[in-house]
Amino acid sequence: MQHALSEASLPRGFRFAATACGLKKTGALDLAIIASDVPASAAAVFTQNLVVAAPVTISKQHLHASKGRMRAAIVNAGNANCATGAAGHLAAQRTVAETARRLACTPNEIIVCSTGVIGVPMAVEKILRALPKLTSNRRPSARSFAELSLAICTTDTRPKTAAAAFKMSGKRIHMVGCAKGAGMIHPNLATTLAFVVTDANIAPALLQKTLRDVAGRTFNSISVDGDSSTNDTLAVFANGAAAAPAIRPNTAAHRAFSAALEEVCQSLALQIVADGEGAQRVIEIEVRGATTEAAAKKIAETIATSPLVKTAFAGGDPNWGRVFAAAGRSGVHFDPAKVEITMAGVPVLRKGQPLDFNERAASNRLLADHVAIVLHLHAGAASARYWTCDLTAEYVRINASYRT
Amino acid sequence: MQHALSEASLPRGFRFAATACGLKKTGALDLAIIASDVPASAAAVFTQNLVVAAPVTISKQHLHASKGRMRAAIVNAGNANCATGAAGHLAAQRTVAETARRLACTPNEIIVCSTGVIGVPMAVEKILRALPKLTSNRRPSARSFAELSLAICTTDTRPKTAAAAFKMSGKRIHMVGCAKGAGMIHPNLATTLAFVVTDANIAPALLQKTLRDVAGRTFNSISVDGDSSTNDTLAVFANGAAAAPAIRPNTAAHRAFSAALEEVCQSLALQIVADGEGAQRVIEIEVRGATTEAAAKKIAETIATSPLVKTAFAGGDPNWGRVFAAAGRSGVHFDPAKVEITMAGVPVLRKGQPLDFNERAASNRLLADHVAIVLHLHAGAASARYWTCDLTAEYVRINASYRT
Repeated sequence: MQHALSEASLPRGFRFAATACGLKKTGALDLAIIASDVPASAAAVFTQNLVVAAPVTISKQHLHASKGRMRAAIVNAGNANCATGAAGHLAAQRTVAETARRLACTPNEIIVCSTGVIGVPMAVEKILRALPKLTSNRRPSARSFAELSLAICTTDTRPKTAAAAFKMSGKRIHMVGCAKGAGMIHPNLATTLAFVVTDANIAPALLQKTLRDVAGRTFNSISVDGDSSTNDTLAVFANGAAAAPAIRPNTAAHRAFSAALEEVCQSLALQIVADGEGAQRVIEIEVRGATTEAAAKKIAETIATSPLVKTAFAGGDPNWGRVFAAAGRSGVHFDPAKVEITMAGVPVLRKGQPLDFNERAASNRLLADHVAIVLHLHAGAASARYWTCDLTAEYVRINASYRT
Repeated sequence: MQHALSEASLPRGFRFAATACGLKKTGALDLAIIASDVPASAAAVFTQNLVVAAPVTISKQHLHASKGRMRAAIVNAGNANCATGAAGHLAAQRTVAETARRLACTPNEIIVCSTGVIGVPMAVEKILRALPKLTSNRRPSARSFAELSLAICTTDTRPKTAAAAFKMSGKRIHMVGCAKGAGMIHPNLATTLAFVVTDANIAPALLQKTLRDVAGRTFNSISVDGDSSTNDTLAVFANGAAAAPAIRPNTAAHRAFSAALEEVCQSLALQIVADGEGAQRVIEIEVRGATTEAAAKKIAETIATSPLVKTAFAGGDPNWGRVFAAAGRSGVHFDPAKVEITMAGVPVLRKGQPLDFNERAASNRLLADHVAIVLHLHAGAASARYWTCDLTAEYVRINASYRT
């Protein structure tokens, strides 16, 4: 699913850089910057967790104070700067202040993100020492974007990038994104960070609304293990450098922009699931025939987060009983006697009754990289999709290992 | 935790029997009866799952129609009789009718329970053939109770029984219970069945109310993997054979009865958790200082069902960050800056700030059979406990294996 990004797919007017400042013990890239040459419209969605890291608190304040006109995101991996108290808050503020000084902008124009170990004091001097070179090295190149996508990784086995483009008033609008996924080694947490940049021209309020809609169908419709982290952040910058007219709500241009954003976000979200710890395959749960989209999503989410369902998929087991039972405990009312279930294209249940099927053939289909399960309620016209990965012994091995 | 039941601990006026009718392919005990010599007060709580097996539907109807005066429970393992359509419903009705005929009572006086594979037609002839001998073999003996506790097992590695007693008006009141726990091999589900019998004298309505309260703090406060089954049933029979006066609400006798029922139910519930698939240890999550008991329970439940928390405990990892973060996404509001966490007696977080502690010593304590985690919110006076087990690679191995 990963797009090999070419120079031509990059939006104009953005520069990227990454460096190894020493937060990752391995000496790998661990500090990165994304900066627009001019103030850009910015929008973001953050973790819903009540326990949040200092960078999330500060980024929310800045997004609000700047009225969604921002310049850059400064991101580190290797330390989540969470549960680090007043010192951690100060560390994030000093990182922002120095970045702003180097970019000749105000602190309010900066988003700051951290991912990694929690509860460990932030060695902010390492970041401050690295910032001058990092900011001066930023480049509008595919290579620097690739370095950024690597620097934000923690236990990801591969970087995650995506791109989309569309035309508007004769101008080509570019959009690229990168993300890091669920990964934790004691006492880390599964943090999702994702950044999307585009040279579209769109007002902050419309960008925020569009992002929220898209996030609901993409990043908020995936689960690796049902845990949400203290640092999750998805931020979008739109700097208008393509020189196209401003995108107005409910126009063809807005639909094209939304579709491009959804394409990028869905690709990144599915890459995160596919790279879930120990994951062998992506499971797509689609619930159809519900009375509302929210009801469909609730059922799909309950199935997607069931350990029994997820372990069955690790073994390619066409275990429709677990799917049916998970739907039944979702809290959404439906008539079990009307339910139809198809697994990897094989009908296994109709009108609530088991069907005869070739279990060996079905099991073989369930061992594919991407497996679709469809549950039809026959109660209405609404539907929703949710993506997860299988739960394997490798997941347990990764997460049970004590820090060595 | 398992009690070796003696003859003296059995309540008077109950007889038990078990046989191998052929539903378990191994030839093990798979059909059992619990019968009171006289009509007993009966109460039960059932699965909240929308997808329910035929026996659950029928038992609910009978409990209602008999106004809580019942004679017996007939139970099979090896086939859950779920998603088996009209034929499955008829199979359960025929089982009940024949049991009632043998006991010379009405079908409404019988509870019927099944556990095992779902979606497979019920071979009811096997049950009907075995019923005459089963009913005539029932005995008021500790041995027959032990056989009952074995017959209801599926993938449990050991039977689960518990007993309690108290005195009232000079009479000794006896109570014993047995349960089966979470176990599934394709396409089974984790079904909990539990039965408690007592010779106390208590009206059906008060028994039902007491059972509901106790179940909330015991069977409804445990989780092996967050999945609830289509067949879960907890039933209590009280036949008054101890010849003590009727128990009235809010008296010392009622408190003694509630305490005995809670002791039996908590013991059975913890035995189920301890025998959770692949489990190495019981994790007790206690949330203190909440504004309400419901809020405390919601946080405790969210922590107890977090795969990240459960895998950390598999490795004896003092990973307080995962506990803190799970609490944060529970949906209950609290101030993270006031939170205090203690793991296996080791304080690890105070006022939302990490404490220095000896990680090796803490890890050793976390490898015990029963580990207690206390999270104090400092927001109020309410508390709740929730029990779960660790999530191990063995759990995945058991549940991912395709039917052979």
